[in-house]
Amino acid sequence: MSAFDDAIALEPQPDGTWLGHTSPAYGNMVGPFGGITAAQALNAVLQHPQRLGEPISLTINFCSALADGPFTVVTRAVRTNRSTQHWFVELQQQGETNTTATVVTALRRDVWANDEHAMPGVPAPDTIEPLGPQGRVAWLDRYEMRVIDGHLPQPWDGREHPDSVTRLWVRDTPPRPLDHASLTALSDVFFPRRWRRHATPTPAGTVSMTVYYHADSVRLAATADGLLLGQAQAQAFRGGFFDQTAQLWNRHGDLLATTHQVVYYKA
Amino acid sequence: MSAFDDAIALEPQPDGTWLGHTSPAYGNMVGPFGGITAAQALNAVLQHPQRLGEPISLTINFCSALADGPFTVVTRAVRTNRSTQHWFVELQQQGETNTTATVVTALRRDVWANDEHAMPGVPAPDTIEPLGPQGRVAWLDRYEMRVIDGHLPQPWDGREHPDSVTRLWVRDTPPRPLDHASLTALSDVFFPRRWRRHATPTPAGTVSMTVYYHADSVRLAATADGLLLGQAQAQAFRGGFFDQTAQLWNRHGDLLATTHQVVYYKA
Repeated sequence: MSAFDDAIALEPQPDGTWLGHTSPAYGNMVGPFGGITAAQALNAVLQHPQRLGEPISLTINFCSALADGPFTVVTRAVRTNRSTQHWFVELQQQGETNTTATVVTALRRDVWANDEHAMPGVPAPDTIEPLGPQGRVAWLDRYEMRVIDGHLPQPWDGREHPDSVTRLWVRDTPPRPLDHASLTALSDVFFPRRWRRHATPTPAGTVSMTVYYHADSVRLAATADGLLLGQAQAQAFRGGFFDQTAQLWNRHGDLLATTHQVVYYKA
Repeated sequence: MSAFDDAIALEPQPDGTWLGHTSPAYGNMVGPFGGITAAQALNAVLQHPQRLGEPISLTINFCSALADGPFTVVTRAVRTNRSTQHWFVELQQQGETNTTATVVTALRRDVWANDEHAMPGVPAPDTIEPLGPQGRVAWLDRYEMRVIDGHLPQPWDGREHPDSVTRLWVRDTPPRPLDHASLTALSDVFFPRRWRRHATPTPAGTVSMTVYYHADSVRLAATADGLLLGQAQAQAFRGGFFDQTAQLWNRHGDLLATTHQVVYYKA
């Protein structure tokens, strides 16, 4: 079992909840990597015996850092329609809610399709060296990252950049066939856009993240364990919160997910 | 009291819930205009005596159409931190949940700010005729709309457009000072992007919408009842669901809100 599968594993409990554990392999500066928490929340819906269809959207709210150790996932199918289903999910520790999420699942239909946001022309992954072991926070070493442009500032000299764009080729380490859970975690691999605008490592943390899934499990399976092109950019920074909008394409140019988040920044 | 204030009015109940009513003035084809439902959900948090700070983000999930008449809003402060607060909100009718929402409120701080997504150069509002009475669905007549480009296709001849962009100047009718509730409703004024890509009025409806608020109440008050520039575009259409990403600026060029939604489309 890969580190990712191990991290998102959930054990069904007699009361209908799920038991999970934070994973040291996906540790971040404070608590776990938000992407793995999002994948855990989604996985409770994916594993649920009453689930209808596949994920269409997820919004996760990081209320408070998870402590290292076990947590309980509480799922509730709020509403089940003919072809869509609405879920509310909570991650709890010691009876307190640390994370909330809403998830929509649905049956997809074979209708007119188009990727209006086309994949930008970028250098092929094999022309870009992957980052070596980072040795900073554990989760970074769970991803193969080939940064095209907009990498972490080197050095942290406070210099201003005109934009916050980052583009990179990315996949799980070790490579693992893509599914909705891993695509969810991959939606959160971009470091805070605030750092990119000025080369200053001010504290920052995601408050809420939304993922829209544009691919069913068949399309994800066809992507297999290939690299994805990820692109992220902020739209506004004000009052200590900025937003980020991002896209993830596979190498065929299919837009697999679009994702947004609002992020706290200290200064 | 304006039609908008009347529509979002909530009456506190002895059990801590709120009583609201759908508003015929904001009727849509099936049930109410989603923007007014989102404003009602937010208003229950805005009115709450335990609220900390001002809105940072809202995600609303439209589980099922509200029936005309009264509804109950149930709010729960899931987690209150030093400077952020997480809410879960449900709109219920006959004990069934029709709508869920999560809201983050927070204390903003005066730190470095920047609108990375700058307002595009567009013609001034007074050079564009406002749409006349629409007489189609009630809510359209609650907004002054001066469409710059990407209006509803005329005629519905099935012709394909290369993109789904719409840009318009917009505000409440009658004009009303902007606040977080009305900004929330304004985030949903864009007709389905699917209609723009082919001039075909296939059924479509928002499944989930997220709003990120980039302005505090002081900045919104300074915008007063002026027109906002709204811009919307889809990123991907596939399997019967597409996404939309949109921005709302005031005439000073302040990016007040960025907003995203995933929308069902039939064909």
